[in-house]
Amino acid sequence: MSTGVTLSSAPPRGMRDLLPAETALREWATSVLVATYQRFGFARIETPALENIANLRGGEGGENLKLIFEVLKRGEKLDKELAERTITRDDLSDLGLRFDLTVPLVRFYAANQANLPNPFKTIQVGSVWRAESPQQGRYRQFTQCDIDTFGIKSEVAEMELIQATSEALLALEFHDFTVRLNDRRILISLAEHCGVEPDAFENLFIQIDKLDKIGLAGVEKELVNQGYAERVVKAVISFLEKASSAKSGNLESLLPPNAQEDVVARLRNVLQAIASVSEGRYKIVFDPTLVRGMGYYTGQIFEIAAKGYASSIAGGGRYDKMVGKMTGRDVPGVGFSIGFERIISILDEKGVKPPAIGEQIAFLFDAERDPLEDVLSAAKKLRKKHIVSLQPKKKEMRKQLDALLNGGYRAYAVYKSDKSEPEIKPLGSSD
Amino acid sequence: MSTGVTLSSAPPRGMRDLLPAETALREWATSVLVATYQRFGFARIETPALENIANLRGGEGGENLKLIFEVLKRGEKLDKELAERTITRDDLSDLGLRFDLTVPLVRFYAANQANLPNPFKTIQVGSVWRAESPQQGRYRQFTQCDIDTFGIKSEVAEMELIQATSEALLALEFHDFTVRLNDRRILISLAEHCGVEPDAFENLFIQIDKLDKIGLAGVEKELVNQGYAERVVKAVISFLEKASSAKSGNLESLLPPNAQEDVVARLRNVLQAIASVSEGRYKIVFDPTLVRGMGYYTGQIFEIAAKGYASSIAGGGRYDKMVGKMTGRDVPGVGFSIGFERIISILDEKGVKPPAIGEQIAFLFDAERDPLEDVLSAAKKLRKKHIVSLQPKKKEMRKQLDALLNGGYRAYAVYKSDKSEPEIKPLGSSD
Repeated sequence: MSTGVTLSSAPPRGMRDLLPAETALREWATSVLVATYQRFGFARIETPALENIANLRGGEGGENLKLIFEVLKRGEKLDKELAERTITRDDLSDLGLRFDLTVPLVRFYAANQANLPNPFKTIQVGSVWRAESPQQGRYRQFTQCDIDTFGIKSEVAEMELIQATSEALLALEFHDFTVRLNDRRILISLAEHCGVEPDAFENLFIQIDKLDKIGLAGVEKELVNQGYAERVVKAVISFLEKASSAKSGNLESLLPPNAQEDVVARLRNVLQAIASVSEGRYKIVFDPTLVRGMGYYTGQIFEIAAKGYASSIAGGGRYDKMVGKMTGRDVPGVGFSIGFERIISILDEKGVKPPAIGEQIAFLFDAERDPLEDVLSAAKKLRKKHIVSLQPKKKEMRKQLDALLNGGYRAYAVYKSDKSEPEIKPLGSSD
Repeated sequence: MSTGVTLSSAPPRGMRDLLPAETALREWATSVLVATYQRFGFARIETPALENIANLRGGEGGENLKLIFEVLKRGEKLDKELAERTITRDDLSDLGLRFDLTVPLVRFYAANQANLPNPFKTIQVGSVWRAESPQQGRYRQFTQCDIDTFGIKSEVAEMELIQATSEALLALEFHDFTVRLNDRRILISLAEHCGVEPDAFENLFIQIDKLDKIGLAGVEKELVNQGYAERVVKAVISFLEKASSAKSGNLESLLPPNAQEDVVARLRNVLQAIASVSEGRYKIVFDPTLVRGMGYYTGQIFEIAAKGYASSIAGGGRYDKMVGKMTGRDVPGVGFSIGFERIISILDEKGVKPPAIGEQIAFLFDAERDPLEDVLSAAKKLRKKHIVSLQPKKKEMRKQLDALLNGGYRAYAVYKSDKSEPEIKPLGSSD
């Protein structure tokens, strides 16, 4: 500023300022989610926003690896890089902003395992950063809200995550929603059944994942374009057709014929248990076309879809191999992430407001004439029952009262110079 | 990971993982601070962690400007920089992590002024980042907790900030603390009185600021070394001697003789008003040797010192020129920042624990044999009254129960295959 540079007051591209009303809604939603998860024995932890860049680049972040905000090296380390004849862009940074909460969580677990209970059940609510080209409703800094369980092989872990997440959504007044359940190993069985080569599995899943967006004909076209044999395309499409035409059908009728028995048994258990504890307040269905983008899932995968909204509002799955990649010793892990920004924008659309924190009184006084010591004491008395904000009286009181009303105040009081008790008057009445 | 690189599980240098107990303490302290501030009419806002680098560099961040974590440009913009014959390090980054909450707040206010009430009173709790050489207890990512008021010229704004911050500290069980109050303009009067040239004011204040650390003789030596005239040094030291030997003396006896009347009147008002509303629960004193590091303060400045702790636990002041530097139109501003990390480490030292969120029951079951649907239903019933965490039974139950006790559980229950109500048993009893 001293240099006379004109500064922009806008936040960085794709990022936002959160005003009081927005922040209050987010804080309330967070507190409801956290309180629900705590009843299931989950506890909050926090990791730094920055991670060593090698950990971010080395992970299985898929597309997100291209979107890392990298932090420039500092001091001598940077000088050294800049003095090189050929400067390699990857060598300029040593840290990066986390692009999700899963990579840091796995590192956290690997680092702190000795001091953590087993099983370990965490809640994380935190910002993540992705350098996406900003689109409507997509931000470059946004909040994720995850629960994860480490150390439980049994599918009871999946059940608990699904139950807790569903209860959290119900607590936020979401009602008409459905949990879609699948298992990565069902997808693999499907691929094998259709005669796909192992190295083409992941690509096949990416095409299947497009089903919701581009439909059956679209997926067929993609498969043909990508050179899958006619026989393979036919088998895949025939399976998808059957699955998508009967999404609420029973498990057995939707399985690829070569599905593993134990995988199916676990799916059946989860479907039954959740159907039972849901007591009809939400649905769970088996959906063999569900993919989930991340390659690190090893078992069951799940998503929650809310009626009337295109994309999912929560997603997760089992990842039993991630800790082992860091420590050499596998530890079972399952996670479920609520699409926090999605939830907030739906609450906002629905006009949901957080409960008021108390009756807020604007306490007006004359900054020139009233003795401030007495004004402060009078405000202190009022504050025993109310939320009290001191506000110097303005010249045009009518205008000031209108502004207070617009700013969310419902009542005001004026300091009385005879020190008598100030009268609380409603704002917006027709006086 | 797929590349076979060995990854470190440690967080980045100078940063930390927060385990459940630490996170719970921090969350509780935050909720107490926020609830107190809300009673005074302050409301939370949030700004992005990243700011445009020009805004950070152009601010009056003092020493902090050297500690910015800068974010590397991306894509074509970076390619362009790297293709230059001479690469300028400053051109490699376009964003930076905020090093405090004040610079972003001023930008926020400038950007959103039209949609904000007047006066505007904010709470910010958020992370800031500084690339300091890590020392004991100094982290490269840490939390700040600030309240700020925009739009009030009257010293009632200072009073409210001091009162709210003091009440917040009391709510966190801090008792023996003192507010130190001064005004930047008193320091300027002092400098003028001692015959210092205007361009040496800031440097003089920096030396005075060292008083607590290096004592009177130390400051004298610094002044001499820096070439101040003997007459000046004598005048400054004589003033500091008087001020530091009588810190709880009355205002008038501690003023430089040329102090401005209106400045003194405002100081007197704040001292009296706070002495009155404090009702003896905390102290406030005038301290003409108080400096506060930041050059952007224009009026009163204040700090809170807790008995038995060397450095201050809160600090702030009035900055009436910061918004104007961004928008061309001055708006009065006052802020008070609680040293959140300091507070947490003191609470931790004192063994303060957040209130328990409820009775936490570990609900044990046999993951191989018990029907999970029934286990889940039984847990759901228990959850109506308790916090219930499902835990697969381990082979060595005695060891498992010990681990649960160490993990903070005080009770457990075991699923009964006859579906009868599980009995809640205390952990750690001598059964």
